Amino acid sequence: MLILMKQDATPEQIQSVCQRVRDIGFVPHEIPGAIRTAIGVTGNQGPVSAEHFQDLLGVSECVPVSKPYKLVSREVKPESTVVDVRGVRIGDGTLSIVAGPCSVESREQVMRTAEAVAASGAKFFRGGAFKPRTSPYLFQGLKEEGLRLLEEVKRSFDLRIITEAKDTETLPLVAECADVVQIGARNMQNFSLLEAAGRQRKPVLLKRGMSATIQELFMAAEYVLSLGNYNVILCERGIRTYETMTRNTFDLSAVVMMKRHSHLPVMADPSHGVGINWAVGPLARASVAVGADGVMIETHPNPAMALSDGQQSLTLEQYAELAKELREMAAWQAGRRG
Amino acid sequence: MLILMKQDATPEQIQSVCQRVRDIGFVPHEIPGAIRTAIGVTGNQGPVSAEHFQDLLGVSECVPVSKPYKLVSREVKPESTVVDVRGVRIGDGTLSIVAGPCSVESREQVMRTAEAVAASGAKFFRGGAFKPRTSPYLFQGLKEEGLRLLEEVKRSFDLRIITEAKDTETLPLVAECADVVQIGARNMQNFSLLEAAGRQRKPVLLKRGMSATIQELFMAAEYVLSLGNYNVILCERGIRTYETMTRNTFDLSAVVMMKRHSHLPVMADPSHGVGINWAVGPLARASVAVGADGVMIETHPNPAMALSDGQQSLTLEQYAELAKELREMAAWQAGRRG
Amino acid sequence: MLILMKQDATPEQIQSVCQRVRDIGFVPHEIPGAIRTAIGVTGNQGPVSAEHFQDLLGVSECVPVSKPYKLVSREVKPESTVVDVRGVRIGDGTLSIVAGPCSVESREQVMRTAEAVAASGAKFFRGGAFKPRTSPYLFQGLKEEGLRLLEEVKRSFDLRIITEAKDTETLPLVAECADVVQIGARNMQNFSLLEAAGRQRKPVLLKRGMSATIQELFMAAEYVLSLGNYNVILCERGIRTYETMTRNTFDLSAVVMMKRHSHLPVMADPSHGVGINWAVGPLARASVAVGADGVMIETHPNPAMALSDGQQSLTLEQYAELAKELREMAAWQAGRRG
Amino acid sequence: MLILMKQDATPEQIQSVCQRVRDIGFVPHEIPGAIRTAIGVTGNQGPVSAEHFQDLLGVSECVPVSKPYKLVSREVKPESTVVDVRGVRIGDGTLSIVAGPCSVESREQVMRTAEAVAASGAKFFRGGAFKPRTSPYLFQGLKEEGLRLLEEVKRSFDLRIITEAKDTETLPLVAECADVVQIGARNMQNFSLLEAAGRQRKPVLLKRGMSATIQELFMAAEYVLSLGNYNVILCERGIRTYETMTRNTFDLSAVVMMKRHSHLPVMADPSHGVGINWAVGPLARASVAVGADGVMIETHPNPAMALSDGQQSLTLEQYAELAKELREMAAWQAGRRG
Repeated sequence: MLILMKQDATPEQIQSVCQRVRDIGFVPHEIPGAIRTAIGVTGNQGPVSAEHFQDLLGVSECVPVSKPYKLVSREVKPESTVVDVRGVRIGDGTLSIVAGPCSVESREQVMRTAEAVAASGAKFFRGGAFKPRTSPYLFQGLKEEGLRLLEEVKRSFDLRIITEAKDTETLPLVAECADVVQIGARNMQNFSLLEAAGRQRKPVLLKRGMSATIQELFMAAEYVLSLGNYNVILCERGIRTYETMTRNTFDLSAVVMMKRHSHLPVMADPSHGVGINWAVGPLARASVAVGADGVMIETHPNPAMALSDGQQSLTLEQYAELAKELREMAAWQAGRRG
Repeated sequence: MLILMKQDATPEQIQSVCQRVRDIGFVPHEIPGAIRTAIGVTGNQGPVSAEHFQDLLGVSECVPVSKPYKLVSREVKPESTVVDVRGVRIGDGTLSIVAGPCSVESREQVMRTAEAVAASGAKFFRGGAFKPRTSPYLFQGLKEEGLRLLEEVKRSFDLRIITEAKDTETLPLVAECADVVQIGARNMQNFSLLEAAGRQRKPVLLKRGMSATIQELFMAAEYVLSLGNYNVILCERGIRTYETMTRNTFDLSAVVMMKRHSHLPVMADPSHGVGINWAVGPLARASVAVGADGVMIETHPNPAMALSDGQQSLTLEQYAELAKELREMAAWQAGRRG
Repeated sequence: MLILMKQDATPEQIQSVCQRVRDIGFVPHEIPGAIRTAIGVTGNQGPVSAEHFQDLLGVSECVPVSKPYKLVSREVKPESTVVDVRGVRIGDGTLSIVAGPCSVESREQVMRTAEAVAASGAKFFRGGAFKPRTSPYLFQGLKEEGLRLLEEVKRSFDLRIITEAKDTETLPLVAECADVVQIGARNMQNFSLLEAAGRQRKPVLLKRGMSATIQELFMAAEYVLSLGNYNVILCERGIRTYETMTRNTFDLSAVVMMKRHSHLPVMADPSHGVGINWAVGPLARASVAVGADGVMIETHPNPAMALSDGQQSLTLEQYAELAKELREMAAWQAGRRG
Repeated sequence: MLILMKQDATPEQIQSVCQRVRDIGFVPHEIPGAIRTAIGVTGNQGPVSAEHFQDLLGVSECVPVSKPYKLVSREVKPESTVVDVRGVRIGDGTLSIVAGPCSVESREQVMRTAEAVAASGAKFFRGGAFKPRTSPYLFQGLKEEGLRLLEEVKRSFDLRIITEAKDTETLPLVAECADVVQIGARNMQNFSLLEAAGRQRKPVLLKRGMSATIQELFMAAEYVLSLGNYNVILCERGIRTYETMTRNTFDLSAVVMMKRHSHLPVMADPSHGVGINWAVGPLARASVAVGADGVMIETHPNPAMALSDGQQSLTLEQYAELAKELREMAAWQAGRRG
């Protein structure tokens, strides 16, 4: 259920509608729009009757929401959400570039990479301190030490940090350092972690699970939004299919569907999407072409020596060239649109 | 690396080999076998040289392990593992039946079901108190209240409790009540939860993720074993494919592969595997036919009113009939084998 | 649309209903049942009005058919179809065993195998003369020479021949020799071949395509039935998933669904389903357990030397042992059912 | 095996190497390159010894080919193949646009569409006369009548015709009308049809099967090339995954891999790839961005009334706008590359 308020509804009227929602046992979500405010109602197991609300002052219309996802849906909020990350906006129609290594490995590696990323004009630095790994015997990240290095990047360069929180225990630590908290593909349905991410206030980058449907990704985001954190960025990073020539099947149709059915910004991660460094460039271009709000690129001073994902990392030089190309392409597209 | 001790190796010799493993920075795992003890070495990023060990007293042979999973592998431990759950054994060649509702919903529901399960001769009761759900708006389980009801089942009937821990926060609570702690499909690669499950001492039932390869399931189990909890039961519960007529594609080939390549007991869950109650019976029979050590069946006094998974639950009567049939079939198979 | 005739409807009444169907531009299919005759109406693009038929003599009821498959559906024909293959029945509740090599390779190979198959009590011999192969450089079968060898098997042993027709050109040749014409997985949507198979009169074994939904398999069978050949046997042979440890994912849920939603007999082919010889036995047992009408097993005098699919073939000795076990299991199941 | 001739090898030397290949029972394929000629050897079941050739005059080197595909591989022929279609080149670095309806339905529909396609500057017209359909009860195309209408398009506009041959029976008829013969996704492993397509001389557009690996697509193309027809265009048209929000998952990574590992031109078909008309535009742009040699777009004067695939067809106006955009984008990309 979505309650649309009249354009001239007063704050008091909005509050009294919210109170009525609470009185009948549900949860109200204020969704301010360009023209008027809407109030999403969640917490109901079945349909809610419009009778509870339609006679309240300031209420224009009560709209049943047909999808299982509500707060995430463009049906509920037609305007695209713009996520503000310390003054840099994601989802406002410009292209955000996020770059950095898979893992934070050493001070030298991370500072050299950050310098190159900043020089490329990108505003976001990615790098994992806590790494979820399929084998217990693989490098699990530098952990706290990694976060300290990311803090140093933050202080030294005009870069915002995107780094992964792999569990609820370390989320507070990660959220202190991160400008955007990443929830990884393997944790997309770790509902306790989603709830914790919904309760803290840093923006969240939510990666699509490796065999998650688009609707399941929306439902996972809904967990975060339903707890009051509306700053969620969705991310396509490739899905699992029978194809073995690529690491994953990078699903750009999904980016198109996400942009259409949700108001949240959408990021594309071709590095994980295809898993092969020479294929990252064309698929990054394709991500821009389908209208992704941002692109994540793995880059490393020496991919052959990377402790994780070296096969899909670009050298700093390759990255710089690609970032330039993507930016030009985005500018050309924007110019064409007028 | 696997260090095979001589048949007549003394406990002191075994300990001094373990000490040598620690001295060079790795982790020793004693694996007692019917004839002799083996010592698994983990924690190494690459191959370990046999030279460190081959001259120690009591050492028979140093065997490199070719697979990324080690402790889980039948290569390392040829004898099948038998998990003892308060005196009831899983994996000893007899058929274990696990039954109960998807969710614990009420005292009446759970006690009626438990009575029917006990009457059927099954020794294990399943039922979720903490329920991971794809939507934040769906019933999330009775939580602590659910655990109290499961405690009551445990006291009232000769049944062992299998119930899911959905996060590290509630794992200790769940592990206090549970005889076997279940890790659900969506958490199969929640590595922090796997580690926590590896550090506590209750046996663990690990469900295959919905698009996890068999090797990934082995690696997830390896997390638990590598932390010293060797009582892990693997569980096939259907995988995600393009087929829409069934909820999942129940992968019985996987049961055969797991039994062959791992020494751990393997359980099959046809209720989730196919998701349609009238199809559970044939697929439960098939699970017995391929050699699963146990079968999990969802049953509910009134499936149509179930708060979750009603579509795949059997009535108590259907369940009783099926349990009888499965037991007869297992007996026939055992008799045939001699 | 399905027109159910009264129990005492006369042949003349049935014929005049069929004529009316033709008069309005559609195709009638007489479906004789145990109690009464039904007439399926196909050829319509949308719903057909019952008004055309309900006043005709002998008509009991006009039933709209809700699925896109009609003649294949149990909704239309509740009784299971039994296919008679030169006096041996498939689908009558007994277990049919089909065995033989992947390819016919030589007189000696085929005669030795046929002798073992006949000795096992099986009534059906499989073996490919025309082999569709993924590479143009692989062995494509002995072709006409292969058919001659199959003729010799037919004359020498009490065995019915199941062999594949890979195109419309060679179908007449194959159908002359075969007792059952096989349409392979890669040709499941070769509609011209399906139509040709529908126009000839030998029974057809139709294999599920490697990523075909169950409904698509039904639609493919519908092609054959709609042209008047009602003797179709469906066959599950494994589907393509992301799993790489097995050749395919053998989908036994599909066998259950096929038996429920269609009246056609269902065969299971665990040899292709899993692709690993030591896994064939358990999955063949599982096929019997879910209620398949038959099981296809690849066997070869010397699997290591087979020109195709050696990895999944049983030796003649292994096959003999398995056939015995399957037969005993089927007998036990039949006895249990009473 | 690939035999590389010296730069100055004479035609006679080349012929005598070819003769030697034939003498030892294999098939030679002359592959003229910019600098020198190579001779591919096929027909061998295992490795061929270089000894047979290395002492012949004009032979520079004998290179074993490591992949199961040979003639298709860039390893064998590093230069990109350009397919000439009545004077219009596909694969020469410019963008080819192919447009038209899914099915040829009527003279008016086809002529109106062709006029719009020609007006957009596209050089290729697509439209099915023989339609493979999943149900025998669906519209199967206008067949011969459809070909006649396509002939009329060919005579009336400066357009080349791409139309599908669904079986070997109608291939000669289709090939007479078509400038490029299309083999559809469902026929990608119809090996008899591939062989027939290899024996005729019109270029072939080969669509990837809906769950075919890239390597399987290469092997299917290899059938055509191995019979002497080197004018093959590969086409990505979406693969089958678990995702249900889109008709298929359009796999642009595959386009990148095809361009890298094969020298054949690659076309992308976003209309089938995603199956939703408003999503075709972004994915067509993405196809250009990854470097596809051409894009196929379904367009129809009245998509809502189309007899097939209306949901994914653009109106003629939408198509005109998209074609303009794609052309500008290709020009911009070409300009940027310099």
